[in-house]
Order: sequence, then C-alpha cells, then structure tokens
Amino acid sequence: MRKLEELQSLIASSVAELKFPEQPADLYEPIRYILALGGKRMRPALLLMACDLFGGDVEAALPPALAIEVFHNFTLMHDDIMDNAPKRRGKTTVHEKWNSSVAILSGDVMLIEGYKLMMQVPDDKLRTVLDIFNTTAAGVCEGQQWDMTFETSTNISIEEYISMIRLKTAVVLGGALKIGALIGNADMQDAELLCSFGEYLGIAFQLQDDILDVYGNPEKFGKQVGGDILSNKKTYLLIKALELVKGTDAEELGRWITFATFDPAEKVAAVTQIYNSVNIRQHAETEMQAYAEKAFTALDNINLPEESKQYLRNFADGLLVREY
Amino acid sequence: MRKLEELQSLIASSVAELKFPEQPADLYEPIRYILALGGKRMRPALLLMACDLFGGDVEAALPPALAIEVFHNFTLMHDDIMDNAPKRRGKTTVHEKWNSSVAILSGDVMLIEGYKLMMQVPDDKLRTVLDIFNTTAAGVCEGQQWDMTFETSTNISIEEYISMIRLKTAVVLGGALKIGALIGNADMQDAELLCSFGEYLGIAFQLQDDILDVYGNPEKFGKQVGGDILSNKKTYLLIKALELVKGTDAEELGRWITFATFDPAEKVAAVTQIYNSVNIRQHAETEMQAYAEKAFTALDNINLPEESKQYLRNFADGLLVREY
Repeated sequence: MRKLEELQSLIASSVAELKFPEQPADLYEPIRYILALGGKRMRPALLLMACDLFGGDVEAALPPALAIEVFHNFTLMHDDIMDNAPKRRGKTTVHEKWNSSVAILSGDVMLIEGYKLMMQVPDDKLRTVLDIFNTTAAGVCEGQQWDMTFETSTNISIEEYISMIRLKTAVVLGGALKIGALIGNADMQDAELLCSFGEYLGIAFQLQDDILDVYGNPEKFGKQVGGDILSNKKTYLLIKALELVKGTDAEELGRWITFATFDPAEKVAAVTQIYNSVNIRQHAETEMQAYAEKAFTALDNINLPEESKQYLRNFADGLLVREY
Repeated sequence: MRKLEELQSLIASSVAELKFPEQPADLYEPIRYILALGGKRMRPALLLMACDLFGGDVEAALPPALAIEVFHNFTLMHDDIMDNAPKRRGKTTVHEKWNSSVAILSGDVMLIEGYKLMMQVPDDKLRTVLDIFNTTAAGVCEGQQWDMTFETSTNISIEEYISMIRLKTAVVLGGALKIGALIGNADMQDAELLCSFGEYLGIAFQLQDDILDVYGNPEKFGKQVGGDILSNKKTYLLIKALELVKGTDAEELGRWITFATFDPAEKVAAVTQIYNSVNIRQHAETEMQAYAEKAFTALDNINLPEESKQYLRNFADGLLVREY
C-alpha cells in the first residue's frame, strides 16, 4: 500500500503537468492559476488510495483523480465569486485578479475539463464512473445552495445542517473513494461501503472543524478562533445552542447574533460561555463520534484484508485527531 | 421525413415534461423558469432532424436533444450575468429575478443535468457522443470568451471574427447535427459532413444577422435597426469597414465609435453612409454566400438520398433568406 503522502505528491506533480489550451488566455490562464495555488490534494489522493487498496493500477486512476481535483477547484472558483472572497490560500481570487465574468466562464470550462478527464477510464467503467461523478457534482451544488439558503434562514434543524454538510463536503470524498475503488476492480458493494466510509468521515471531519473553530488551539488550528461566532455562521454548535439554551441565556445569544457592532473578543467570550452552559462541546463531540463510528462500521464490512482496513482506520484517526 | 415544425413542437412538449428535483428550490426553480421562457428550440430540433434523416428513431434521440437545449439555456443563464442583461425573451433574467449567486449555481447544475441527459444513449455510442458534447461545450465557452475579449480589443481581423462566431454560435449547431446523425446510425464521415454543413450554415446565419442589423426591415427583423452600430459591436460590417475606409471617412468612423453621447438616428445614418461608401453590404453578402456555399458543398458529399438533401437545402434556404 502506498503512503498517503506519496499519493498526494503524485497528484501534485500530475496537476502541475496538466495541459490546457493557451488561447483564449482569459479562459484557460485562470485554470492554471487556481490549480497552482496548491492545497493538500486530499480528494484525488483518496481516489488513488481506494484504487491502490483494491489492488488496482494507480496510474490508471490518475485521470479520474485529476478530474476530481479540477472539479473541486471549479467549485472553489465559483464559490469565491458567490462569497465575495478576496483571497484563496493567501493569493488573490480569480474574480478579483481578473473579473467575475472570467471566473464564471473559466469555472464553466473547468467543469467540462473535469468531465474530459473523468472519461479517461476503460469503456466498461465509463457509464458507472460518470453516473457517480454526475451525482457527486450535482450534490456539491445542492450543498452550496443549502449553505447559502441557510445564511438567511432561521430555525435550521441539526438534521438539515448535517444534510447540508454531507452534500457540500462529504459526498465528494465518498464519490472519489467509490470511483477509485471501482477502477481498482472492487465490486459495487465494497465500493459503496467505501463511499459510505468517506461520507461519514467527511461529516465527522466537518463537525470537528466546527468544534475547533471555538475550542481549537489557534496555533495548531491555523484559523482565527471564534471566526464562526463572529460571522454568526450556522454551525452545529450555534444550531444546537439555539435549540438548547433557555431563559436569559437564550435572550443573550439572540442579542449577540443581531448586534451589528461589537467587541470581537467580548462576543467570542460571551457566546463561548453560553455554549459551555449547555455543554455544546460535548454534544458536538458525541455527534462527531457517532459519525466516526458509522464510518468505521462501514469500513468493517468491506471485503478487504485486515491490513488495508487498518490503513484506512489510521487515515481516519489522523484526520479526526487534530490537536485541540 | 418529419417536418421541422413537428420536431420543434416535440421538443417543446418534452422540455415542458423535464423533471428536476424540487429542493433546493433556489437551485432548481431557475432551471424550470429559464426553460419555460420558450424559444424556437432550433438546436435540439436539428439533432432530431439529423437522426430522422438517417432513418434513426427520433424518440431515442430525444434525451440528447434535450441535453443540447438544457446546455444552451445554461449558457444563456451565465451569459446574461456576464452581459448584465435585465431581460431574456421579454422576461426578467434569472440573476435579476433571484441574484447572481443563484444564476451561477443554477447554471452549473444545468450543465451537469445536460451531461445526465446526454448520457441517455446506448453504451456503444456513449463515449463518441460525450466526446462531441465536450468539444462543443468547451468551444461555446471559448467563443463567449473571445467575444468578451474582442469588446476591448482593437484590430480584430475578419479571420478572428469568423473564428469567434464559429465557436460561439456555429459549433453547437454542428455538434447537435453530428450527435443526431450518429444516433441515427450514420457513419462517422457522413456525421462529420453534416457537422460541417451545420457549422458553415451557422456562420452564414450569423453574418446575415450582422447584415440585417443595419439593412434589415425593422418590422420583419424584429430588432432595432442599427443596434450594433449604436453599441459599437464589432460585427463583420464594422471590422470590414475599419479595414477598408481611408482618409476622412476613416477619421469620421473612428470619431463615431469614441463619442460617448450622440443622437442615435444620426449615428446610425452616418455610420451606414460610411459602410455604403465601401460597399460593406456587398462584402458581407459575398462572405455570407461563401459560407453558404461551403455548407452546400459539405451537404452534397453526404451519403443520403437526394430527397433528404433537398430537405436540408430547403431548411438552409429558409434560414438564410429572411426578408430584408
């Protein structure tokens, strides 16, 4: 079994070698630009990993893995327009460096380039692989739309939130693993179990991200602690708190959400205290653990040697145990 | 052979029956909205026509024909954002009725829905059909980018202009005909000849559109005469005129292009007079006729009964002889 780091660096060098037309420059240069911003290349590496675990040829899985990475960066290019984001990985976003029209159209052609790469699989796998890709891609768009809809909604349930993060974040992990497994000649049942493993793990990972935003060690987490609190982001923590807090705490939480101006440190401290009063961290960790368990249960049922399963368990543990 | 009108109405009723998910509403409702705005459904009708001419099953060609229509409307939804267009077929555009983010994301999922429909072809045709669709789709994006790039360019050549309108307008006609022909079991050579017929016809049609903008009968053309002149649109007429006019006429044309304020009727009259001084209409008609001839030559070489070729000639004549 190849190490994850080895697969990630194989992806990194293959992304760097991807060829797109030179002209029109404003269509294809932004694609080269966003792909060169780097990143952990986790999604395509998972696709290769799945293929490798089932004894498949990792080289044959490279084009669909690159398809997943190109697709992921297409979603980033369009999300950045929608979010009005000025920076991505410390560099100017495409719509800021060029303009929104360029970012829309480059993104469109990236999605098409993703399909071209995804089609580089054997004929007997083509329809199955593309069906998975279609479902995954539409799911990611649905997740992004729910995320935008939730920004202006009240009374989002935990169930709706989990459904949103599943679509927005987790289905692409599951889809990448499923496609990789099938290219590695796994049978459909094992491919679907591995897909479930990826989806549940993705949900657990996102819940962990919600927890780390408030309770993480800022030096290790790498983001501003309390960022979600400051922007009133409807994370698991806020949704659960709104469900649980009563009386004056409920009123106070409601006030903090509506304040247009505030002292950032004060808001983070106050909301965290309200979270603590109803044990939000514990609720979130229990929920995260429940999804991790679902992932491990799916994994247990896959028809793979124990050694391979242990590899995947270690991968999941590494992903979920980021230091607080 | 089925009449074009019959195929268009088959498409119209099938578009009306297309099913998309109900939720998230802001993702799928704009798709239903833009598809309900109507239109001549010419592109998908051409796909059905090609299938029918080669003796194929028109019903089997319906899903890919719908794919072409969904794809075309995806490009309209995104183009309207880029063009800041308030109206489309007399109705509010999607980005105005909802917002830009909704129009970006709905368009994205429309492209994916287009792929889903295009995949509803037999296994033995899947890869070929999708390859054509990929090339067509990327070509349309390239054409749109060139069109935007030309807005701020000077010294565009006629060759560059033809290349742009080929990509932006003509390749989707060619692609639709090619896919339809292959689904009708045409051999690749005939499918490619029919594709060329469609591309050349598309270029001729766009050149005619440029001519009609200045020399058309406003009642029959259905658009404001001189609209391209007023917006300094780099049509065949303007590009050719900039190439041909000399001396004071060249200076005057240059001035009209730079004026920020002007009397519209005066500008249209003055620029038209400059066009007339170098016989622009005749140049454009000669060019248009040359592409029509290329279309007819491709058609002559297709292995189809004379009756079918005559059907296609009549179709082309009907398209190109719009009254002036």
